[in-house]
Amino acid sequence: MTTTVYTVQGMTCGHCVSSVKEEIGEVAGVTGVDVDLATGRVTVSSDGPVGDAEIRAAVEAAGYEVADPA
Amino acid sequence: MTTTVYTVQGMTCGHCVSSVKEEIGEVAGVTGVDVDLATGRVTVSSDGPVGDAEIRAAVEAAGYEVADPA
Repeated sequence: MTTTVYTVQGMTCGHCVSSVKEEIGEVAGVTGVDVDLATGRVTVSSDGPVGDAEIRAAVEAAGYEVADPA
Repeated sequence: MTTTVYTVQGMTCGHCVSSVKEEIGEVAGVTGVDVDLATGRVTVSSDGPVGDAEIRAAVEAAGYEVADPA
């Protein structure tokens, strides 16, 4: 199993969390999505490697942005 | 037509607005709901008088609170 952590900006409530989880959950290979609203930390579990671009696109489809690593 | 204005606390995003609109829209007699996210101002239009208690209950069902008049 592969686990990748992203930071998502702009989520303000539980509805936002649900939207992000739903969109990322639809990416092929993704088996689990955990979101911490307070920090924006999104942990994506998958069967194997999943492209960053696909995760970013899913987050953007939900209406949010992945923060670039500092 | 009757128009009543409430202030709803706790809405943070467009999803919150949608939830409040949906719940209030299901109250019998309500014909329209307009929400301003920035101010929390919710304008309810109805065919006739609608009970405050029913609007408050709808807002609470959506997960928010009506602010008491100052």
